[in-house]
Amino acid sequence: MSDALSKRIEASLEESLSCAVGLGSPPTLREALHHAVFPAGGRIRPRLCLEVARACGAPSSPLAEGAATAIELVHCASLVHDDLPCFDDAPTRRGQPSVHAAYGEATAVLAGDALLVLAFETLARRGEHAPGQVVALVRTLARYVGGAHGIIAGQAWEVESSVPLAAYHRAKTASLFEAAVVSGAVAAGHDGAAWRALGDRLGMAYQVADDLADAVGLASDLGKPVGRDGELGRPSAARELGVEGASRRLYRLLDDARDAVPPCAGRAEILAWLRKTLDALLVSRGVDSVRRSAVA
Amino acid sequence: MSDALSKRIEASLEESLSCAVGLGSPPTLREALHHAVFPAGGRIRPRLCLEVARACGAPSSPLAEGAATAIELVHCASLVHDDLPCFDDAPTRRGQPSVHAAYGEATAVLAGDALLVLAFETLARRGEHAPGQVVALVRTLARYVGGAHGIIAGQAWEVESSVPLAAYHRAKTASLFEAAVVSGAVAAGHDGAAWRALGDRLGMAYQVADDLADAVGLASDLGKPVGRDGELGRPSAARELGVEGASRRLYRLLDDARDAVPPCAGRAEILAWLRKTLDALLVSRGVDSVRRSAVA
Repeated sequence: MSDALSKRIEASLEESLSCAVGLGSPPTLREALHHAVFPAGGRIRPRLCLEVARACGAPSSPLAEGAATAIELVHCASLVHDDLPCFDDAPTRRGQPSVHAAYGEATAVLAGDALLVLAFETLARRGEHAPGQVVALVRTLARYVGGAHGIIAGQAWEVESSVPLAAYHRAKTASLFEAAVVSGAVAAGHDGAAWRALGDRLGMAYQVADDLADAVGLASDLGKPVGRDGELGRPSAARELGVEGASRRLYRLLDDARDAVPPCAGRAEILAWLRKTLDALLVSRGVDSVRRSAVA
Repeated sequence: MSDALSKRIEASLEESLSCAVGLGSPPTLREALHHAVFPAGGRIRPRLCLEVARACGAPSSPLAEGAATAIELVHCASLVHDDLPCFDDAPTRRGQPSVHAAYGEATAVLAGDALLVLAFETLARRGEHAPGQVVALVRTLARYVGGAHGIIAGQAWEVESSVPLAAYHRAKTASLFEAAVVSGAVAAGHDGAAWRALGDRLGMAYQVADDLADAVGLASDLGKPVGRDGELGRPSAARELGVEGASRRLYRLLDDARDAVPPCAGRAEILAWLRKTLDALLVSRGVDSVRRSAVA
């Protein structure tokens, strides 16, 4: 999680946004798009994408950077729509007013739409030298975002009366981690399928960590109100397995994630990065103490 | 506007939707997506795309079919979001309940999102044999849909207090007609830029015709309530220029559209199709009588 990487991600997001809106475009939407993307949240998905590209021997691929940017734009779009009154009705996000709270519901719907479109545009614009890979990346992104099994399907499960927990979590959270990992490999010219398991286990781990944080964690660190999932009657690993059970599940997923890293040139480096990042996840979600108390 | 073309468009939309959702995907979203796309509206944009591809000598290009499908999916997405309570709050569309009226607001937001993603996926899936053209088509679609000058920008102008009428209409309606025309040419291996003017004039004509229909036309033929634009204080050519002025403007745009067809193998055929289609437009919007009375 080097600082240089962090700067590359922010600069690339700025560059993409400046293409999305400019002189002569509607000013409120322009402001709302910036508000939706900045300041930075964890940026874990674009980092993951670039770390995988680096592990595959393509540390500075412009296509990987485009893929990382596209995935973060889609993630921001999903947060904007997820916060809407008809879903979570969340007043805050990343410690500031949510987009609809700041700019109104209509602009929030459009900002999410515009970010989705911008994600695909970014892939096409950054990859004109490698159109075959762009086509693969567009298909990858669409698959993990779409209404069948992607994050849109994940949100759609929330309006169903009967929800399969694993399918819900896989679609809602794991899918975009899988997109990040597969896209990083594809952009580096590697086989994306070999990397899928890493993305899946990581994504499932993040979802369980968020469920635990919502049940026992710290609102200030999560950047959104705690206890919302319970209030909304949403499927939650913490409610289904109990705090101790969910905590055990989380640590098993983290072990599985590390085991799922396929053979590659930068295997040691990506494992070291994963260790550091996952430790930080546990602390930031206030769930490192859960394990200590569960184990004690 | 041959019947064979019409069947191709419906079959292609069905095929795309069946990839978007399937066994194991959230059932309410699946139903809502079908409801958003069927039964057919005018399908004028996908027809236009295929007519241009045919005029350019590629009557049965699978890439043109993919582009036509993508454009109609995006159009359906925009209708679903445009009908939401935070925008037009329209109870009906194409003579049936709007998506949010039938399935709730949350599902309507997600259905629009899923259709946007499916549009880009369709381009990538139908064009794996021609990745360079797919990249050009993705960029074309994104440009005419996005938040800077596309249909999303068009909707975003509606929340601004000061709205430039031409920029608003160009973004809100003309952009997707331009996308259809340019995509048809690009899919056929032609220069898209030469066709832009046709798309622009046609799109502007449709917007003026809709403004007139909203002011004086027939609700039953439009498939949505009349008088909404006025109620919503929306910029309208009919309100700005008066019914007679808007009517004159409409006929000038239709003449300009015909003049804008560039030299191509199928010029006579596309001109004949345009004549038939535009006559039908005037009748369906209840505005053919406006001209007669204005001229009389």
